[in-house]
Amino acid sequence: MVPHLRTALKGALSDLELKMMDATPMIERWFRMEWQEHTPPFYSSVDVRNSGIKFAPIDTNLFPGSFNHLAEELYPLATQAAMAAVEKYCPDAKNLLLIPEDSRQNQRYLQNVDHLAKVLRLTGLNVRLGSTSPEITEPTAVDVGNGQSLIFEPLHFNGRRLTLDNGQFDPCTILLNDDLSNGVPEILRNIHEQILLPPLHAGWTTRRKSTHFSIYDAVVKRFAKFLDIDPWLINALHAKVSDVDFSNPDFVNGLAQTAEAMLKKIAKKYKEYGISDKPFLMLKPDAGTKGIGVTTIYSADDIRELSNKNCGASCLLKNGLAAADILLQEGVPTIETVRSSSAEPVVYMIDRYVVGGFYRSNEQRGLDENLNSTGMQFTPMPFVKQSERSLSDLNTAHNRFYSYGVIGRLAMLAASLELEQTDPNPDFL
Amino acid sequence: MVPHLRTALKGALSDLELKMMDATPMIERWFRMEWQEHTPPFYSSVDVRNSGIKFAPIDTNLFPGSFNHLAEELYPLATQAAMAAVEKYCPDAKNLLLIPEDSRQNQRYLQNVDHLAKVLRLTGLNVRLGSTSPEITEPTAVDVGNGQSLIFEPLHFNGRRLTLDNGQFDPCTILLNDDLSNGVPEILRNIHEQILLPPLHAGWTTRRKSTHFSIYDAVVKRFAKFLDIDPWLINALHAKVSDVDFSNPDFVNGLAQTAEAMLKKIAKKYKEYGISDKPFLMLKPDAGTKGIGVTTIYSADDIRELSNKNCGASCLLKNGLAAADILLQEGVPTIETVRSSSAEPVVYMIDRYVVGGFYRSNEQRGLDENLNSTGMQFTPMPFVKQSERSLSDLNTAHNRFYSYGVIGRLAMLAASLELEQTDPNPDFL
Repeated sequence: MVPHLRTALKGALSDLELKMMDATPMIERWFRMEWQEHTPPFYSSVDVRNSGIKFAPIDTNLFPGSFNHLAEELYPLATQAAMAAVEKYCPDAKNLLLIPEDSRQNQRYLQNVDHLAKVLRLTGLNVRLGSTSPEITEPTAVDVGNGQSLIFEPLHFNGRRLTLDNGQFDPCTILLNDDLSNGVPEILRNIHEQILLPPLHAGWTTRRKSTHFSIYDAVVKRFAKFLDIDPWLINALHAKVSDVDFSNPDFVNGLAQTAEAMLKKIAKKYKEYGISDKPFLMLKPDAGTKGIGVTTIYSADDIRELSNKNCGASCLLKNGLAAADILLQEGVPTIETVRSSSAEPVVYMIDRYVVGGFYRSNEQRGLDENLNSTGMQFTPMPFVKQSERSLSDLNTAHNRFYSYGVIGRLAMLAASLELEQTDPNPDFL
Repeated sequence: MVPHLRTALKGALSDLELKMMDATPMIERWFRMEWQEHTPPFYSSVDVRNSGIKFAPIDTNLFPGSFNHLAEELYPLATQAAMAAVEKYCPDAKNLLLIPEDSRQNQRYLQNVDHLAKVLRLTGLNVRLGSTSPEITEPTAVDVGNGQSLIFEPLHFNGRRLTLDNGQFDPCTILLNDDLSNGVPEILRNIHEQILLPPLHAGWTTRRKSTHFSIYDAVVKRFAKFLDIDPWLINALHAKVSDVDFSNPDFVNGLAQTAEAMLKKIAKKYKEYGISDKPFLMLKPDAGTKGIGVTTIYSADDIRELSNKNCGASCLLKNGLAAADILLQEGVPTIETVRSSSAEPVVYMIDRYVVGGFYRSNEQRGLDENLNSTGMQFTPMPFVKQSERSLSDLNTAHNRFYSYGVIGRLAMLAASLELEQTDPNPDFL
């Protein structure tokens, strides 16, 4: 089930959209069967690109940080999904501890935390915020910027349980909203009696994009066979390149060759589908998020130029993680625009439910660029109302968000498998 | 979790409302624990009365028939809940067969079917309508009255499975929207390979209000102890009277005595709570729905008057079921009004989720009368928007629908236990 949200997309439905819409009952069944075997992450968000010919997920986030950009009317859906997720782990829960990242200066992020906490409170749980910052030694009000404030409380770990308020607030479930780009806080390392969601290995200290997208390849292979489509239509080619060293000519040549081989593969696909665009790649750090260090590559020369700039890992990634490895990913140009700016849909999921979406747009960036950067703006997607579902208007008669919901869930399913496969303490049943 | 819907209720929060709101995390946990032990009905609706001092469910419907009166913005919530319910029974379902009651002339009812089918289709299931009417021998378009039509198809039973379209449409789940007031259609009697929801014994051929409310007594006893309140505050007294025969003076005297004893009990409670209203009872057939034959009783004389009218069972119940037994139920006056008419909230649930509500009002009826009768009107309850949640406005700052959601779910829990206890083929585990 994918809620009928209003997309900005105009024009005729693509063959792929039509195929997915027509196959809806089969696709929904396919996902239901998958969830019999695998456990979805507590929450996730997926950046999707739609070139008009193909769709692909380009980033899968297991600590979504923009709940404040979902249309408010979608909150009950998110709350109901969160309730279903919580009761799976802790039916007897009264309390939920939410641990945000330590970004107390970032009001945009704090508004996300505020909205997420509201959605969770509507389940009927007591929700309080715990801070991993050593600076928080007592309950501290933090200004959210819209007249609201959040109370961050110090965490207490007694060797067995993580609590607030000297053990008075003792949660069954701990929900992490910190992607651990800055490492795993010591206090979170020994939680065994309580359920930490998502688990620590969902953070960027463990996760690698190359692992995620390799697993996505396998998911897509099965799904594309089932739907009888070319898997390339819902996937972006990718390659991992290790031991980044732009000062080493051998490394730069190797990277340039890999890039050229990928560009050739894409050109072949473009020819097959009659696409006249110029193929390109996105170069990304293999770990880390928030679009840092993402660069568009059209040719081997672009790679050499990066090296000439003596850019090195530091200009690829500036958030403290070493960009030891990089991911080359097929660039999928976006045909979506919001107020004339290039835009990409972001699909939000809680448990196995699609609970909303919004557009990320950036007027400073082109349709072949990373939009997750300075200047980005967010546009919530509201529900299409029954009264608007005119047959003469393609954008309201059909749920064009459906395809995005399919791609989002395929990436989310890949993340489920990824968390299973990378679990340092797997359950042997 | 109870969505924050807009109630018509004005004025200060009652002590009971405040107590429930404050205890929300405990109450939600209580329900979650119950759903670990019991399976909710696929769907249900509960008529609730609020006297300002007390709340009580007065009717629990296991075949809700007014989905068209839910605010449209609540549909995604209903769809998500329906999806959770369906996947519990049939994760591999592609098709869902919906069997409405045979009321093809009743456009109000057909609009309910239309909306219910839309909610179910949004789960991604193929939904088609099967008719139990012998008149439907081929797919037949039925006018819904708003320019829409529904296709009713003949059912086919091959001795093992119920299908449409000569076996082409073979569902895993069959959803019944017929309360079986007119008996169990033969074709539904031998379904064993497929899941029929709700089961046949949820229909009025088996159900008895007295059984339901006796089980509700037991549910309330536990809940009231847990919440530390007087159980009477969330329950209506009731008594079953068998072998109705208004021509027999002994029967009439016995009924009058029972009524008097109940009125005395209520008067005592009224005195305890300083209520100056005059106690009254509702006399109802013990089986059957739609408010047929419901009469307000203020005294033993009112009972004798019924007998003098030589009314008999026929004026109690006119829909073909014999009113062999009747239920005397404490009358709970309603303080709710919509456009100056007496109104009562109706809570809609799918699986264990509250998915919406509306008001039933009736300008021809008083606050001590059955509103489910000629002249009734429906007013959907919309979501309260975040921007409206002003602290200065009690009706938007607090989710006053919450208490109704609690009462609705307590009655729904009682229905779950009722279906377990009345199951003709219980599972022995």
